[in-house]
Amino acid sequence: MAQAQAPDPLLAAVEAGEARAVARLITRLESGDARGRQMLQSLHRRLGRAHVVGVTGAPGTGKSTIVDRLIEAYRRAGLRVAVVAVDPTSPFTGGAILGDRIRMQRHAADKGVFIRSMGTRGALGGLAVHTADAVQALDGAGFDVILVETVGVGQAEVDVARLADTVIVVLVPNLGDDVQAVKAGIMEIADLFAINKCDIDGGDKVAASVEANLALAPASPNGSWTPPILRLVSEQGTGIPALVEGIATHRAWSEKSGELARRRALRVRENVRALLQADVTGFAFARDGSIRPAFAPLLLAASKGERSPQDLVDEILRAYRDS
Amino acid sequence: MAQAQAPDPLLAAVEAGEARAVARLITRLESGDARGRQMLQSLHRRLGRAHVVGVTGAPGTGKSTIVDRLIEAYRRAGLRVAVVAVDPTSPFTGGAILGDRIRMQRHAADKGVFIRSMGTRGALGGLAVHTADAVQALDGAGFDVILVETVGVGQAEVDVARLADTVIVVLVPNLGDDVQAVKAGIMEIADLFAINKCDIDGGDKVAASVEANLALAPASPNGSWTPPILRLVSEQGTGIPALVEGIATHRAWSEKSGELARRRALRVRENVRALLQADVTGFAFARDGSIRPAFAPLLLAASKGERSPQDLVDEILRAYRDS
Repeated sequence: MAQAQAPDPLLAAVEAGEARAVARLITRLESGDARGRQMLQSLHRRLGRAHVVGVTGAPGTGKSTIVDRLIEAYRRAGLRVAVVAVDPTSPFTGGAILGDRIRMQRHAADKGVFIRSMGTRGALGGLAVHTADAVQALDGAGFDVILVETVGVGQAEVDVARLADTVIVVLVPNLGDDVQAVKAGIMEIADLFAINKCDIDGGDKVAASVEANLALAPASPNGSWTPPILRLVSEQGTGIPALVEGIATHRAWSEKSGELARRRALRVRENVRALLQADVTGFAFARDGSIRPAFAPLLLAASKGERSPQDLVDEILRAYRDS
Repeated sequence: MAQAQAPDPLLAAVEAGEARAVARLITRLESGDARGRQMLQSLHRRLGRAHVVGVTGAPGTGKSTIVDRLIEAYRRAGLRVAVVAVDPTSPFTGGAILGDRIRMQRHAADKGVFIRSMGTRGALGGLAVHTADAVQALDGAGFDVILVETVGVGQAEVDVARLADTVIVVLVPNLGDDVQAVKAGIMEIADLFAINKCDIDGGDKVAASVEANLALAPASPNGSWTPPILRLVSEQGTGIPALVEGIATHRAWSEKSGELARRRALRVRENVRALLQADVTGFAFARDGSIRPAFAPLLLAASKGERSPQDLVDEILRAYRDS
C-alpha cells in the first residue's frame, strides 16, 4: 500500500529526529490513524539502535526524580534521550504534564530531550500497544536512550517494564513491606535495584532484604548476571553516576550473553500479540469502546441472558473471517 | 457441539452448587479445556442472579479482613458467599492460600463459602478473562454474593473491579497521598468508600479529602447516587453492619435506576472483547506464550529487524481468516 501513495513528508522529519514530528507520529498511532502504522512499517529497519531502560517501582519512590537525573547525565554525555512516562491514574495522554513530571519540564527547551506522558485510563488492554508504538517511533527517530517509566504495580504495568533492555526497580526505606508487596512481583524483573532516599534511615534493611531475596532467586536464563543494589538520594543526585555505570555494564553484559537478543525477541512477540488483539477488537468495537452497530442487537440479547457471551464471540469471529 | 456429546456429569454438580465441582470447572476454564467453556455456555441462562461486589484498594488497607467480615455477615443472613481474590504478585492460582487469605481459611469447612485465589503473573492480558470466567461459574453454581477482591493499582486490576455490580474502595489513614495516588484512578469507580483502620488517627482527614474529591466529580450516568463514606475497624468488626447495609442500598438503587443493567451490559461487552482477543491469541501462540511453530521463522526475522512486527501480524491474520 505504501508504494501506491505519495511519501509522507512527516516521515523524513521523524527520521531527522524532529521532536514535533515524532510527537505527531505517536499521536497518529494512539488515535488509530492508519498512516501512523504505515510510518512505523517504513521505519522498521532503523529500529533496534536505542537502549530501552525501564524504571519501575511503587508510587512515591522517586522514579521521576531518578529519570530526571538520568536525562541530565545522558545529555552531559551528548546522548539524545526520550522518556515515555506511563501514568495509570491519569486520563491524559500526549503533551500533558503530570504531577511529578513538572520537574522534567526544565528540559523542555532542549532538543535532545523528548518527554511523552501516557495516561492509561480507558485504554483497556491498550497499554502494551501504545508503549511499544511510542518506543518504536522514538527508536526510529534516533534517540539513543529511551527511558520507560511505569508504576511497578499491576500486571500490565509490570509487563511493560519487563520488556525493556535493562530494568531498574526502585525501592525506598520504610515504605512498608505490604506497600512494596509489589516487590514479590517485580523482584525477578530487576536488572538493577536502586534504593532511593537513602538519606533516611532504613536503607540497610531494604538492601539486606533484597539480597536475601536474590539468594533465593532462580538463575537468570542467560547465566551470570547478579543485579547490583545501588543506593541513591536522587533529589541530590547522589548515586546517579553509579546508576549510569550500572546500566552500561548491564547493557554490555546482555549484548554479550545473548540476553539482549532474547529480550528483544520477546518484545517483538508481545508486540505482535498486542497488535493481533487490537485488530480483532477493532473489528468488533469502535475506538470509544462501544460495540459496532452490526453486533449491537446480539450484545443486547447477551446482556439480558438470552444469548451467551460465547454466542456473540462466535458470531463476531464468523464475520471477521468472512471480512 | 454440545448435542453431539454425552452430558458432562460435572455440570449437574456445579448446578447443585457443589464446591468441588465449581473448583474443577474454574480449573478447566483456566487451563483452556474446551469442556469448561462449553459448560459455561450451558450455564448461561442461570446467570445474573448473584450480586457481584468488588473490593479494591492499595496493598495494606485491610481488604482481606473486610472480605472476611463480609463473609461472616452474609453467612449469618443465610446467604451463600464466594470470593475471587486476585493477587497480582502471586504466581499461584487455584487452591493456593495467599498471605492474608489465611484468615479466611476459617471458613474452609463451611459449604456455603467458596474461596478462590488467582495469581496473575504470566497471565498477560488474561486477568479479565479468568476473573469473568470464575464469576460466571460461581453465579451459575448459585452463590448469592460474589466478592471480587483486587489490588486497586494497575489498570487491569482496576478494570476488573469496576465491572462489579457494587464497588467498595478501601482507604486508610496515613498511608500517604502518593501511595494512594491510585485514588485518582479509583475515586470514580467507587460506589462506597470504606475508610478502614479508623482506630488510628487521620480518619477524618481521609474522609474530608474523599468528600472534597466527590464534590468535584462529574455526576454518575444514572443520576443521583452519592457514594457514602463509611468508617471501619475491620479487625474488630466495627462498621461492618453499616457496610452490609450500604451494599444493599446501592444494589436496590442500581436495580431501580437502571445502573445495574447498564453495568451488566458493560460486563458482557468486556467479556466478549476479552474472549475475542483470547481466540486470536490462541491461534498464534501456545498457552506458555511461545509462538506456534508455523510462525516461528517470521518471528525470528522480525526479531532481527528483517521484517516488521506488522508483517508478522498480517501473515497471522491471513492464516487466521483462512483457518
